[in-house]
Amino acid sequence: MNSHYSKSLIVSILLLSSILKSQNADSIQLRKIFDYYLTESKCYKNLEYLTTKIGGRLSGSPQAAKAVIWAKKAMYEAGADTVYLQPCMVPHWVRGEKEICSTTNIKNKQKTNYSICALGGSVATPINGIYAEVIEVKSFEELDALGEKNIKGKIVFYNVFFDHKHLSTGSCYGETVKYRWAGPSKAAKYGALATIVRSMSSINNDFPHTGAMGYDTSICQRKIPCCAISYIGADILVNELKHNPKLKLNLKMTCQTLKDEPSFNVVGEIKGTEKPNEIILSGGHLDAWDNGQGAHDDGAGVVQSIEILSLFKKQNIKPIHTIRAVAFMNEENGGRGGKAYFADTKKNNLKHIAALESDAGGFSPRGISVDTTMNAYEKIVKWKNLLDPYFLHYIKKGGHGADIEYLQDIGVPLIGFEPDGQKYFDFHHTADDTFDKINKRELELSAGVIGSIIYLIDKQW
Amino acid sequence: MNSHYSKSLIVSILLLSSILKSQNADSIQLRKIFDYYLTESKCYKNLEYLTTKIGGRLSGSPQAAKAVIWAKKAMYEAGADTVYLQPCMVPHWVRGEKEICSTTNIKNKQKTNYSICALGGSVATPINGIYAEVIEVKSFEELDALGEKNIKGKIVFYNVFFDHKHLSTGSCYGETVKYRWAGPSKAAKYGALATIVRSMSSINNDFPHTGAMGYDTSICQRKIPCCAISYIGADILVNELKHNPKLKLNLKMTCQTLKDEPSFNVVGEIKGTEKPNEIILSGGHLDAWDNGQGAHDDGAGVVQSIEILSLFKKQNIKPIHTIRAVAFMNEENGGRGGKAYFADTKKNNLKHIAALESDAGGFSPRGISVDTTMNAYEKIVKWKNLLDPYFLHYIKKGGHGADIEYLQDIGVPLIGFEPDGQKYFDFHHTADDTFDKINKRELELSAGVIGSIIYLIDKQW
Repeated sequence: MNSHYSKSLIVSILLLSSILKSQNADSIQLRKIFDYYLTESKCYKNLEYLTTKIGGRLSGSPQAAKAVIWAKKAMYEAGADTVYLQPCMVPHWVRGEKEICSTTNIKNKQKTNYSICALGGSVATPINGIYAEVIEVKSFEELDALGEKNIKGKIVFYNVFFDHKHLSTGSCYGETVKYRWAGPSKAAKYGALATIVRSMSSINNDFPHTGAMGYDTSICQRKIPCCAISYIGADILVNELKHNPKLKLNLKMTCQTLKDEPSFNVVGEIKGTEKPNEIILSGGHLDAWDNGQGAHDDGAGVVQSIEILSLFKKQNIKPIHTIRAVAFMNEENGGRGGKAYFADTKKNNLKHIAALESDAGGFSPRGISVDTTMNAYEKIVKWKNLLDPYFLHYIKKGGHGADIEYLQDIGVPLIGFEPDGQKYFDFHHTADDTFDKINKRELELSAGVIGSIIYLIDKQW
Repeated sequence: MNSHYSKSLIVSILLLSSILKSQNADSIQLRKIFDYYLTESKCYKNLEYLTTKIGGRLSGSPQAAKAVIWAKKAMYEAGADTVYLQPCMVPHWVRGEKEICSTTNIKNKQKTNYSICALGGSVATPINGIYAEVIEVKSFEELDALGEKNIKGKIVFYNVFFDHKHLSTGSCYGETVKYRWAGPSKAAKYGALATIVRSMSSINNDFPHTGAMGYDTSICQRKIPCCAISYIGADILVNELKHNPKLKLNLKMTCQTLKDEPSFNVVGEIKGTEKPNEIILSGGHLDAWDNGQGAHDDGAGVVQSIEILSLFKKQNIKPIHTIRAVAFMNEENGGRGGKAYFADTKKNNLKHIAALESDAGGFSPRGISVDTTMNAYEKIVKWKNLLDPYFLHYIKKGGHGADIEYLQDIGVPLIGFEPDGQKYFDFHHTADDTFDKINKRELELSAGVIGSIIYLIDKQW
């Protein structure tokens, strides 16, 4: 062995040994993090309180106001140095009385009541309801082809199923949600009196799925009431229509949009020891639809974010950067919290080195999607082997949560957390999105993955 | 570019192109397989029938006999050329009347009833029950240290929790199940009258988890009654004992072991077109504990196996090898079906080129474990990229289901299917293991992974 060879060999060995040591140290720390999450963390207890003691908490509601107070307290208890309430004005839509939707069979005179719920943002029906024929359509193309002569004076029923060939239920949702969001104005253009949309549901049960809609006054000035019907209800309606194409449906909803209300994002932070002006954000959204408890959507993301403060505090890890847990307000029907956060960030010239959002349910971990800003993907994908044992099986390039998306405009690398999503649209926006649908270990494992990623970003970036 | 370089380049390109073509063809075929599973397969319908129309089907029971007839019919309907009923004598243990377990608080005289269930194989209590003091132990070491003077005449309560630091709930189970299996004889040795074991449960609810136990007459000739208590029941009992260490417990069970009954494995096959004497096996076990419906354990594995016949038939894939779906009998309390299958294999000198078992619940896919016989692991791991998009995220070396393990003795490569396991021990061996705990898409995705693996083995081995 010549001396040159021997020197470079020694350098290589030292380098390798230093890499291995550092990877080994990370690996040991991650194991500690998961020990913490699986045995000591308060995610599950916090989620129980938020969902069962406060419940559904749509923007502007008294429950949303309670949730803000609770989140502030929970963040301090988790170990935040400071908790800010970041003001934003939010839409205030209220459902009113329980919606009524029924038909009467032409032959046996039997009345059928359907499980429906008004869509968030919908106007009410006239006080005595709407009583009109129903016209079923399978697409906007079919709607356009039918035109005013077939649609005027009727209730349009968008009957579009999930395409179960998609491996991701998010893709099923992505394809169908347009009928919920844009369906009313498109039908109103042809003189429809109201719209009913088949719930964006992955299972055939009787829970209707609510969700936001938007009137597009550039398409039609007239705002018509709109609701979602349960999967089973839609099946029954299809059957009734088969036997009687002239079937008339009785629809009554008393929902209304009140004036905007003041509300808040809740921002809890632990100041960084070396780079206090550089922020790492982990967030979820605090608001949730009024019909359920908002357990998967998105109580889970909120408690997982709060738990990060606790992780650093309890494990006595002094963060290099400032760690922020953010409970965003109004993701569901306006995104005002995300916008307010962004405005505050710009106004105060805050620097974020990364932002992660968990808003896809409290299920067991699967992967994350990372955008390519500042080589974030390339830096994170190096941790694949560290995270793989904890069921984080893929790190892909891609999207992120809605609340953090504005930060992309100022070059903040964004991360979307992706738990196992097969069941998400069983519960999404329904009365069935309740605490008992959350498995403690699954919630904690995903929280542990999120905690680990924030830990690694803090340590290595 | 010289001619030699050019030639080897062309050869390389041709080789690469042929590999890519073949991978691409497999990839296209797998997509077709998943289209089939997610939209046409009968897994979920079959499971609904097996679990809700037949229900719990412990070996020797009338339900188990019904399940055999059903499985035969379902395999023919799925497209089997032939369905064999493979005889085996099975243990016939019956639970008898609902078990009674209660204590009376020494101060307020209030009676507490505990949710318990006899362990499979347990003897009954005397006709009037057992009324005796309870002694709580946390380990066999503690039991040994207490010895006869502290244990004689008492009921031993094995109070051992899952260690939630384990990432795999199977590891939690592995550490605690010894108190269920071996606890009775070890306690009997010191003169205990009965044993109660904290359920091997991952959640704190009120369902007791049954399961097999075994008397070891080399440790103690005397057979004492034994049961499992629910997680919540165990907590209450601990609390009662804290306030009154002399607490007496009333235990009454009427279970008994009757004489062995004739039963069957159900074996459905599609004959191979080129290598009919080489078998690829996919199995699950047909028997299930009497207290629930056996949905996750192991109705799921049975319907996934049956569906493979349907896949080949409906997709018009002519298998090269003989494809066998096997519904094993008596996995839960004897393994007689597995032994009978092996005996038949040896007797008829059958050649199996691979055997897979699905016996870990009907959850969404995660991975498989493959043993190293005949380089099976090395051959299967090459398909990682093909299977990864379908949520099969890991292929590791390791164990497999209990029914196929005997085949290892004659060099058959074995594969264990591993779905997401975080919730498995929420339901395992309880009255809560019911059809409504099964998510259709999750069941179908896992079935699709199993079908894909069998397809690839048939095509490439």
